[in-house]
Amino acid sequence: MIQLEAVYHRMGQNWSYAYDEDTLHIRLRTKRGDVASVDLVCGDKYDWSKANDKVAMERWCSDALFDYWQAAVKPKYRRLVYYFALHDEEETVYFLEKGFFEQPPTVMYEGLFDFPYLNPQDVHMPPAWAKEAVFYQIFPERFANGDPSISPDNVLPWGGVPTPTNFFGGDLQGVIDHLDHLSELGVNAVYFNPLFAATTNHKYDTSDYMRVDPQFGTNEKLKELVDACHARGIRVLLDGVFNHCGRTFAPFLDLLEHGPDSRYVDWFRVRQWPLGVVDGVPTYETFSFEPIMPKLNTANPEVKDYLLNVGRYWIEEVGLDGWRLDVANEVDHEFWREFRRVVKQANPSAYILGEIMHDAMPWLQGDQFDAVMNYPFTNILLNFFAHRTTDAPRFAQAIGAQLASYPQQIMEVAFNLLGSHDTDRLLTLCQGDKRRMKLATLFQMTFQGTPCVYYGDEIGMDGAHDPLNRRCMEWDSTKQDRDLFGFFRSLIALRKAHPALRGSGLAFVPIETQPQVLAYERWDADERFLIVLNNQEQPVSIDVPVAQQVSEWRDAITGAAVTAGATGTLLAELPAYGYAIMQSPTGASSALAVEASAAE
Amino acid sequence: MIQLEAVYHRMGQNWSYAYDEDTLHIRLRTKRGDVASVDLVCGDKYDWSKANDKVAMERWCSDALFDYWQAAVKPKYRRLVYYFALHDEEETVYFLEKGFFEQPPTVMYEGLFDFPYLNPQDVHMPPAWAKEAVFYQIFPERFANGDPSISPDNVLPWGGVPTPTNFFGGDLQGVIDHLDHLSELGVNAVYFNPLFAATTNHKYDTSDYMRVDPQFGTNEKLKELVDACHARGIRVLLDGVFNHCGRTFAPFLDLLEHGPDSRYVDWFRVRQWPLGVVDGVPTYETFSFEPIMPKLNTANPEVKDYLLNVGRYWIEEVGLDGWRLDVANEVDHEFWREFRRVVKQANPSAYILGEIMHDAMPWLQGDQFDAVMNYPFTNILLNFFAHRTTDAPRFAQAIGAQLASYPQQIMEVAFNLLGSHDTDRLLTLCQGDKRRMKLATLFQMTFQGTPCVYYGDEIGMDGAHDPLNRRCMEWDSTKQDRDLFGFFRSLIALRKAHPALRGSGLAFVPIETQPQVLAYERWDADERFLIVLNNQEQPVSIDVPVAQQVSEWRDAITGAAVTAGATGTLLAELPAYGYAIMQSPTGASSALAVEASAAE
Repeated sequence: MIQLEAVYHRMGQNWSYAYDEDTLHIRLRTKRGDVASVDLVCGDKYDWSKANDKVAMERWCSDALFDYWQAAVKPKYRRLVYYFALHDEEETVYFLEKGFFEQPPTVMYEGLFDFPYLNPQDVHMPPAWAKEAVFYQIFPERFANGDPSISPDNVLPWGGVPTPTNFFGGDLQGVIDHLDHLSELGVNAVYFNPLFAATTNHKYDTSDYMRVDPQFGTNEKLKELVDACHARGIRVLLDGVFNHCGRTFAPFLDLLEHGPDSRYVDWFRVRQWPLGVVDGVPTYETFSFEPIMPKLNTANPEVKDYLLNVGRYWIEEVGLDGWRLDVANEVDHEFWREFRRVVKQANPSAYILGEIMHDAMPWLQGDQFDAVMNYPFTNILLNFFAHRTTDAPRFAQAIGAQLASYPQQIMEVAFNLLGSHDTDRLLTLCQGDKRRMKLATLFQMTFQGTPCVYYGDEIGMDGAHDPLNRRCMEWDSTKQDRDLFGFFRSLIALRKAHPALRGSGLAFVPIETQPQVLAYERWDADERFLIVLNNQEQPVSIDVPVAQQVSEWRDAITGAAVTAGATGTLLAELPAYGYAIMQSPTGASSALAVEASAAE
Repeated sequence: MIQLEAVYHRMGQNWSYAYDEDTLHIRLRTKRGDVASVDLVCGDKYDWSKANDKVAMERWCSDALFDYWQAAVKPKYRRLVYYFALHDEEETVYFLEKGFFEQPPTVMYEGLFDFPYLNPQDVHMPPAWAKEAVFYQIFPERFANGDPSISPDNVLPWGGVPTPTNFFGGDLQGVIDHLDHLSELGVNAVYFNPLFAATTNHKYDTSDYMRVDPQFGTNEKLKELVDACHARGIRVLLDGVFNHCGRTFAPFLDLLEHGPDSRYVDWFRVRQWPLGVVDGVPTYETFSFEPIMPKLNTANPEVKDYLLNVGRYWIEEVGLDGWRLDVANEVDHEFWREFRRVVKQANPSAYILGEIMHDAMPWLQGDQFDAVMNYPFTNILLNFFAHRTTDAPRFAQAIGAQLASYPQQIMEVAFNLLGSHDTDRLLTLCQGDKRRMKLATLFQMTFQGTPCVYYGDEIGMDGAHDPLNRRCMEWDSTKQDRDLFGFFRSLIALRKAHPALRGSGLAFVPIETQPQVLAYERWDADERFLIVLNNQEQPVSIDVPVAQQVSEWRDAITGAAVTAGATGTLLAELPAYGYAIMQSPTGASSALAVEASAAE
């Protein structure tokens, strides 16, 4: 008996969507291991005889409870009605929009699922460059002090112990001076924490949205920096803080001064007068309970115009490649829709990245963001490699659940980070064990999405959460971990050289005897990788099943031949926390190829 | 063991949404009968100690497979993170965004479900009047010929047999002449099929969007009609055909004449030149495969501007109260977003109603439509009352599934029709048995949403599908079924007099011995109704359990006292296809009250 309560599909979201101007992806969920095969039966609602098809769906990923099936179809006349035929050994169940049936439907224009029309203008197409990008995150106050003349009066010597309020004089000239470091590492995009005038060292309390903070430099200096990045093929993303401003933002100062009579009274949301903090709660809406971060009233057209103009201004003024949006899910949807319109008009290939730590489907339907900061991905990797609270099968299930929860084009540009100014540093979470840090990074760099390196991680900086995760960048090369840097650099180079490592072809290879060994294949039409990670102290010698000829594999780093194991397997001999990256020129023609084509 | 595969919640859609500026509705799905109780544990993500709560969720409806639970909460600081505690007799399971757990979470800012911020401007508020409206649908060519001087040359005598192509001369003056009929019936809104210039009798092939069809009258006549309706408290909805135009629309005529050189070439989507029909398929995109209905390219800003202007023009010019949008789901989402902005700017209380026959969640998130034509509701009622392919328990399950699938404010203005110009007439589907037609209408008029009467149904007109469902309105009162008219009139009056019959308080009362007897309670804070429908030839005498004192009930139509049955029941003695509507002044203070408050 097929468990009907587990079967899920609903038109829209991640379940049916346009992947490109001609292709729909249709997905179905069933109980894990419950269903042997699924057919997607589909056609034209107005004349079934003119276009119809039966497509075998691929079981393309799984999590702890469910299997997920996918098919890609190109509806001849841009319209598709469809139903599912679910088969197990004993029965076939037909799943329509109107319910479950023992017999297939005879009427095709009513009660089936319906993707009414694939209008090209509805297709959510994130910028192509973001799929190819490797980001580097810079916290400006702590990256490099290139112009001591503009450092704050109370600046401390570079490299001191950070506190929530002290300053070390990092600035834009410092970044310009160290662009070689970025080029050497191989990244091709930078995400800057806020650069605009503000009072704190993190600058999330904006006082002037139209001006670079004078401690960092000038607007012209930012233009110089962006130009220098572009000259190196490095894109630039700025942090936009539109949910709230700072206490010293002129309209809020006016509100503080004039109270209910301020002409900016509708720029904010005042709960009660006078402005102040009562029992730890500001009397006006704020970010968190933070009095220096008053929430902006984006329902007010004046506020909206002001902020939309900021969104446009920096794109036009300095040639910005996109925005990272702070506390993005606390701003209203309509504001983001207008923001997208304005930004994409100014730069059609702008990357719009929202800071959302939870499920972000409502913001990722094509009308708001291209991507979100993928903290759920962070947590999956940390749980396995850093906290060690899970194992390879559960890791694979969690990755599967995430892949299934968004449209493919969303996952292709998901901002996959392993740490940021808001988290403990990766090395610290790995208890200082850089072997585990390498494994986590290796997975990050061989998974689809847009990986990001937090400044300093690549040279072995550690630090628990804020403020210790915001230490000054270490520029003394004798104090940098150059081995780790080499590892990052080679991984990034490998990713950039091989589209298969960035694309959607992915299958986990179960290694049942070794729950701490993670093996997965990555492929595209031209080649294939087998990656094996030994996430434990104990060395292992294991046979990893592969569908291709063993003779076709070689080590992706050294080029050396690999050793065959038992029939149809490769032998992976891995030291403690070791890894192997093997490569085969066979592309997507094996038994797994069907998964590739369905997921493409 | 709680069946985890059946448990469903995802932030957004119908599962968590703002009902009003202060209130969130949170819903959860579980396997039917599987879970004894559910607690919603919720609080502020930034400081749990400042705001948190544990709310018992109400099992507010059920379908064949699932129970649906709901809670309404007012987050103190507009932010809510939450998880669910599901209890059965043996265990408690904690359901978080990150999965199922045996222990409750200890960290509240990560891994819980998150409704990040209730921004008032995001709340989807359909126009209040639509909740109170009873619509009447008029197919203009067939309602009344009030001005023979403008009838088409080939007009036929009123009352002849309709064909797909003939004309009887119905016009706007005819509607003006018969507004007394609408007032007598008690409707307070009219939906007109297309009125703009076109070649067919149904006018879905627009040739001029800016002009009333000369066979119907002038733009001034339409203004006169709308004014006359408004004077009677009747709102007016026009049919907007923006998916496609007609063959005689000037830009398409230009395309026919100049081919690829036409300056309107980007107004349409040409698959191949020359324009024509090959093997029954037009060489350009169309509605269905209909060559006289070329699809408009709403990706073209010029087309968009033109159509948006149409949307604005009729609101400003004649005082329109909203649009019914033809083939709404085949036009792109971005067009509808802009359409909503333009229309609501012109008339903030405009009702935007999309024609969508399937699940319409992607269009009902607040940025596009207020409501859709609720054909799934139609089918549920027809299956029970007309086709007789189901029974009362399955009817209740199907209604439950529909209620659960949309936010409450959507169901409050769902356009609940029992027939239209696109379906067989209700009386025909009831095999001419007007008793069954009455039961269906009774349910329609005592259910939340926006009911609509298709012209002529109220006086007993029959007719199978197009063209027979579009016969000339019968104005000879001796040929009208006046008993049926009286029934419609009294039901509409009852609905208008009692908010409880329009609100969301609803519970089906199981009558296990009689699968063809449907009993349900309707309530609000002030009063309560018990409605019993005997959907069969066999008379019944049944005890219907009620929580209130029996002495408090009386017949809602006659005012007569009702008879007590066994302890705690009312006796309902119903003839074949009979019904009883009983009323009690007890409001929502009974055992069912909790459902009412949760669903409010």
